[in-house]
Amino acid sequence: MVDVAVVGAGQTKYGNHPLGLKGMWAEAAERAFASIDGDFSPSMVDEAFIGSLAFGGAQLGNTAALLTEHSGMDGVPVRRVENACASSGFAFRDAWMAIKSGQADVVVAGGIEKMNDLTPERKRFWLGVSGDTEWERLAGLTFPGTYALMARRHFHEYGSTHDDLVNISVKNHAHGALNPLAHIQKQVTFEKAASGFMVADPLTLYDCCPTSDGASCVILAADHVVKRFTDSPVWVRGSGAASDNLALHDRPSITQLKATQQAAKLAYGQSGLTANDIDLAEVHDCFTIAELMATEDLGFAERGQGGEFAREQRGMLNQGNVTINPSGGLKSKGHPLGATGTGQVVEVFKQLRHEVEQGRQVDDAENALTHNVGGSGATCAVHVFGREIA
Amino acid sequence: MVDVAVVGAGQTKYGNHPLGLKGMWAEAAERAFASIDGDFSPSMVDEAFIGSLAFGGAQLGNTAALLTEHSGMDGVPVRRVENACASSGFAFRDAWMAIKSGQADVVVAGGIEKMNDLTPERKRFWLGVSGDTEWERLAGLTFPGTYALMARRHFHEYGSTHDDLVNISVKNHAHGALNPLAHIQKQVTFEKAASGFMVADPLTLYDCCPTSDGASCVILAADHVVKRFTDSPVWVRGSGAASDNLALHDRPSITQLKATQQAAKLAYGQSGLTANDIDLAEVHDCFTIAELMATEDLGFAERGQGGEFAREQRGMLNQGNVTINPSGGLKSKGHPLGATGTGQVVEVFKQLRHEVEQGRQVDDAENALTHNVGGSGATCAVHVFGREIA
Repeated sequence: MVDVAVVGAGQTKYGNHPLGLKGMWAEAAERAFASIDGDFSPSMVDEAFIGSLAFGGAQLGNTAALLTEHSGMDGVPVRRVENACASSGFAFRDAWMAIKSGQADVVVAGGIEKMNDLTPERKRFWLGVSGDTEWERLAGLTFPGTYALMARRHFHEYGSTHDDLVNISVKNHAHGALNPLAHIQKQVTFEKAASGFMVADPLTLYDCCPTSDGASCVILAADHVVKRFTDSPVWVRGSGAASDNLALHDRPSITQLKATQQAAKLAYGQSGLTANDIDLAEVHDCFTIAELMATEDLGFAERGQGGEFAREQRGMLNQGNVTINPSGGLKSKGHPLGATGTGQVVEVFKQLRHEVEQGRQVDDAENALTHNVGGSGATCAVHVFGREIA
Repeated sequence: MVDVAVVGAGQTKYGNHPLGLKGMWAEAAERAFASIDGDFSPSMVDEAFIGSLAFGGAQLGNTAALLTEHSGMDGVPVRRVENACASSGFAFRDAWMAIKSGQADVVVAGGIEKMNDLTPERKRFWLGVSGDTEWERLAGLTFPGTYALMARRHFHEYGSTHDDLVNISVKNHAHGALNPLAHIQKQVTFEKAASGFMVADPLTLYDCCPTSDGASCVILAADHVVKRFTDSPVWVRGSGAASDNLALHDRPSITQLKATQQAAKLAYGQSGLTANDIDLAEVHDCFTIAELMATEDLGFAERGQGGEFAREQRGMLNQGNVTINPSGGLKSKGHPLGATGTGQVVEVFKQLRHEVEQGRQVDDAENALTHNVGGSGATCAVHVFGREIA
């Protein structure tokens, strides 16, 4: 079976982006193309998968083809992949399978979202539709509210506290402050984050990711063509994905995400690696409690000990076994919904090639993981990467 | 490389469906499951791909997971695939690649759309977004208008006439009248179709497909597990897909769809078959002119002779070399956008197993083709099927 590597990756700065959809995508794609060491032309792309939830609410059908048309990939078979905020995590998985299938040698996976052109009402609508509509959204449960329920329950079951969440916010802002592509490039003190404006008790402004514009693009290649493009590929060692019930009331537990656990099990199994082998992980911290749960679900901390892991800042850059969200994560790097999954891969690509800007490189990074969640855990894709392939 | 077969297929009746999204999907999925001869349980599904454009405008994020949850496929990795009206044609292609990749043995591909709960304004919006937004939709060009331009140009270049289009309408209604799952189950006379209410000159009501609700679901399996499910599999002999510029003004010709030609070339090439070997084709006749162009682009008629092909009713059931749209096509069977692509496969599955209701079976059907177009040709997926695999 063919092995698959990432040979190029690029993204826009996340935030309030001045360009429209086509311009943002072209910028991300051009940066991905330019990151390829060898000869490359967009006409070499055999297949493409672009993740997006709302596309900024503008062109909503066939936009994937519009974007490839405007980035030199004329005629390429392309489709939009949508799984709420896990859209491009699944686009990446589908790109990986396309190469594994023997039908394509060079495949683009990307994602895009333009949130800041939407009215506040439409923004709320497009964020809300990622959770359960029938039992949650229409009953008034917002996304911060959903994760607030998870946080309160985790505090109750395991004795974790809001201070633990504050530590996650402080860490991710510390990382993001060093990331020139991050939406919010500033550190926050523990005191400031601990006394933030309340959004949904116990989650404050500093527990919630911002609403970002952004696009990200990565290029995958089959093992037999990798050498044409680079001597430093980043290998996809494992891919796992799963789904879960949308509505929280249908889940046996709301302090863990079954889809994350299942996806991680598959990805680790395939990679031959365990959580102990991972040097850095880009995890889906749409809210700080989501990162706390992810550290448990992905095996970086024991069940119920995510609070302690956060309290001791074990995920801080080069402080412990694994750096969690060296990019700043969704909290500080930003969260352009459909762009987030492949945006995580952009970070991993740079980290494993040891090409990160001064001050943010994870030392001796050999293996990495990405964790991309849709809604409140209805879908999840986990990927494991390495400088070497098993 | 593993070969892939369709081992089960089912769909709802198309039309104004009384059930909501979950109920419609469950109905299609249950019919697909029930069509499997051997033992089958939805928990056997390794991966799923569901095509939809608008989902009825209701739950728009993570709906793919909602649907698999409500059809017994708990936890399955699933995503929505969106390419306007070619959404489930691409879902089918991605399902086929998932099996080819060796990562999955049993995969579901499906599609769904609930159009009749939308207000007329939202219906127009969701139909409109499939074409180019910037240069066409916002400038007032409707979908019937887009295809009317193509028709007028074809008349001009090749001497085809509106009467040729009327013949296509008459044929598809003749087929659909015999299809218990069709939206419009009635024959129309040439005279009636020729004097229809004008929609966009020269296209009348009888040149335009209806706006349908519907869901369709097919089950694909890897060659090494096919025998568990059936002794009469329908093999996928070839898959091709392509994209094109969204806006008509960017295309060298508007009397042919380059994406169709490219997708067909790839699918035929892979299958080892040519247009001459195809006994029946389900083609994307959102408008009668689209079928006329498809007969040329797919090689059933020479360039410019689609009009003559229609005039002589060479695509009528068991009249010529190939039957075009034995199901009634989008014109009469109906067009629930995202459900159309896999709905075409449902028809092919029955036809190649010689299981079609009395009066609509294509005699000695051995090989078939499906042709699913997104927008006005920005995306296209073509699949070639056979009772035997090469």
